[in-house]
Amino acid sequence: MTQSPGLFISFEGIDGSGKSTQSRRLAEHLQAQGQQVVHTREPGGSTGAEEIRALVLQGDPDRWSPETEILLFTAARRDHLERTIQPALAAGKTVICDRFADSTRMYQGVSRGDLRAVVDQLHDLMIGVEPDLTFIVDMDPATGLARAKSRHGVEERFEDFGTDLQEKMRAGFLQLAHEYPERCRLIDGAQSPDAVAADILAVLAERT
Amino acid sequence: MTQSPGLFISFEGIDGSGKSTQSRRLAEHLQAQGQQVVHTREPGGSTGAEEIRALVLQGDPDRWSPETEILLFTAARRDHLERTIQPALAAGKTVICDRFADSTRMYQGVSRGDLRAVVDQLHDLMIGVEPDLTFIVDMDPATGLARAKSRHGVEERFEDFGTDLQEKMRAGFLQLAHEYPERCRLIDGAQSPDAVAADILAVLAERT
Repeated sequence: MTQSPGLFISFEGIDGSGKSTQSRRLAEHLQAQGQQVVHTREPGGSTGAEEIRALVLQGDPDRWSPETEILLFTAARRDHLERTIQPALAAGKTVICDRFADSTRMYQGVSRGDLRAVVDQLHDLMIGVEPDLTFIVDMDPATGLARAKSRHGVEERFEDFGTDLQEKMRAGFLQLAHEYPERCRLIDGAQSPDAVAADILAVLAERT
Repeated sequence: MTQSPGLFISFEGIDGSGKSTQSRRLAEHLQAQGQQVVHTREPGGSTGAEEIRALVLQGDPDRWSPETEILLFTAARRDHLERTIQPALAAGKTVICDRFADSTRMYQGVSRGDLRAVVDQLHDLMIGVEPDLTFIVDMDPATGLARAKSRHGVEERFEDFGTDLQEKMRAGFLQLAHEYPERCRLIDGAQSPDAVAADILAVLAERT
């Protein structure tokens, strides 16, 4: 995506890591500086993708097989990319996305069986785009899970998978940061929200 | 699928070719002979796939890009395969399916741009199954379109693409029959329904 005038930033991390709050704070900060910013999230972020999101996130945890789920997430991502992200980047805006393909690499590629190779092949075939910069907000899984549960969010279906999953996901996100050192930056989410936000701005200032 | 005890039969052809009627007639005929038959259709054929079907077939023709549409059809097919087709075949039943992957090869692979290679790669990656026998019901496009329009069916979104598409699809289905000579059999849909049904039974008798 380096050919686009806009900057594409994603936030990743386990549930309750604070990534949604921090991605919103960053968007507000950049807007206050006069930048044109689109703050969006996955799954969802466009009309069609939000409808697919409702299909995937609601209902029984075994409602879809891991493979069908990967296809639905990829369909939603393709729509989000075409209708929201790429037009904004082409117009020179900064896009800040709460979760992107790394979440599928983790949640569908690791947590529901060893499907990482399928996730990657599908990504290469149908998406083929990575953010310019990815903040991976690291957080102790027990704390993250307690925070996530206190929210009673719509992502309940995934949070139901419990603490073991959170441990596995944390390790997976740390591994991702090593796998993609060019675009991924680890942020310590255990700090105060102000300290986390300051770390994020420091990384951004160094990158741009 | 040759390892499954059951036989997997699909019906393909342009809208209004009579394939739905003929697939139902075949199912009823085999049931009357005492066979256990599952008659199903795509997109749809399982609870989840029917929900995806509603997303894909309703609304504006440009609601989804061709690539997103291919992903949604493949997600629906994967669910249909896992929840309906494979359990029935494993139990020794005959599965008769009104449309399967060949429809995606035609409608998404040809009609909305040159996406056949993407359709095939996605099929190999996420589906990997072909019917044992495919009846391609051939029909003059003008007659087919008139028939389809008189039904006011829910597939309106695709029928709106018009006669040019039907011509292109007919040629595409004839080409598919040459591409997969092992499993595809061309049936002349211009005959009376009874004559078409007789042709289908003759092919089946020869194959089994």
